[in-house]
Amino acid sequence: MNIQLALDRLTIHEAIERAAAAEQYVEWIEVGTSLIKEFGMDSVRALRKAFPDKVIVADMKTNDNAQYECQLCFEAGADVATVMGTAPFVTIQACIAEAKKRNKQMMIDLLNTTPAQQEALSRCDAIFCLHTSKDEQELGAGENGRAVLKDGVRTAVAGGITPGNLHDYLKIKPSVLIIGSAITKAEDPGKAAAAFKEKVNMEAMK
Amino acid sequence: MNIQLALDRLTIHEAIERAAAAEQYVEWIEVGTSLIKEFGMDSVRALRKAFPDKVIVADMKTNDNAQYECQLCFEAGADVATVMGTAPFVTIQACIAEAKKRNKQMMIDLLNTTPAQQEALSRCDAIFCLHTSKDEQELGAGENGRAVLKDGVRTAVAGGITPGNLHDYLKIKPSVLIIGSAITKAEDPGKAAAAFKEKVNMEAMK
Repeated sequence: MNIQLALDRLTIHEAIERAAAAEQYVEWIEVGTSLIKEFGMDSVRALRKAFPDKVIVADMKTNDNAQYECQLCFEAGADVATVMGTAPFVTIQACIAEAKKRNKQMMIDLLNTTPAQQEALSRCDAIFCLHTSKDEQELGAGENGRAVLKDGVRTAVAGGITPGNLHDYLKIKPSVLIIGSAITKAEDPGKAAAAFKEKVNMEAMK
Repeated sequence: MNIQLALDRLTIHEAIERAAAAEQYVEWIEVGTSLIKEFGMDSVRALRKAFPDKVIVADMKTNDNAQYECQLCFEAGADVATVMGTAPFVTIQACIAEAKKRNKQMMIDLLNTTPAQQEALSRCDAIFCLHTSKDEQELGAGENGRAVLKDGVRTAVAGGITPGNLHDYLKIKPSVLIIGSAITKAEDPGKAAAAFKEKVNMEAMK
């Protein structure tokens, strides 16, 4: 199980600083949508350069213009890009085709998808992100996307994961555990990341 | 009826150049999602500065993190921001609240929404964008969102509008007619914009 550190609501400088503190405990580093929309592809290029050995995820949340948006972030150094599960199916297919051509991967964000959409999407060659949105977290809602959970489907879980609720997410046995502010906003991001890593390692031994 | 010039798949310099050529024929200028994701809020700031008297639309296509994303683009100078109709309803509501607080407006992009979603959304205080996506255009699909069409609902239409199919879009009687590459990729963007404006003016006299 990989830990993906999500960097959001930060400057590029802060993002690199927090990620450096957590570096040895995380495998994937996500350039959050908020960084992309605030700073553009400079954000992806900067994180790629700062962490050449990590898997860099660009949280593009593509809804349209699939090929162009994939080109943008893959050429800026991303290894994985996200597309919305609620986007038209042709957009999702075009993203996956573009990623394959470049030996990259897509992550499909299942935010607000219906079970029928999840069922249709589960046949795609992608990582599926069960995502409780920031706005939903503030209302205490549950996570989205459980209809994709089948044997062999690679999943990621995201949205408000804390040391307190980590156990619930580990039950899903995700390939990728996406953690953001519980690390980036911690007083000591390195210590927070280490604590998550330790729990994940313990789970792996079970 | 306002013409909104959508600037996509361009550098900021090219975007300003094309918009300047069409300036006298368009009322609204859209900083496209591709510009935002490539150049961040610099794109919105640059277009705001270049066209202080136009309505600037930031095609943020927000899916989550409503307040933060609205703040980003409104503080960069946008008058209108877009949110996906497929986003969780709490996100759409939070965008509208943030826009109201700042005396700005939201445009809800109806791309890939269901008629039930459109029905629920039609009660929101926003402009509704009936949107045929770039990826769908390439497959020749139809436009999305007709279930919002009711008296008093302000609509925008977008997606592959050309001089040849303009007539079909005018039938919807939109408040905003969104035109992109038919102007920006024309040999003479000013001439192309003038031709659209003339047709819109003729329609208004009917």
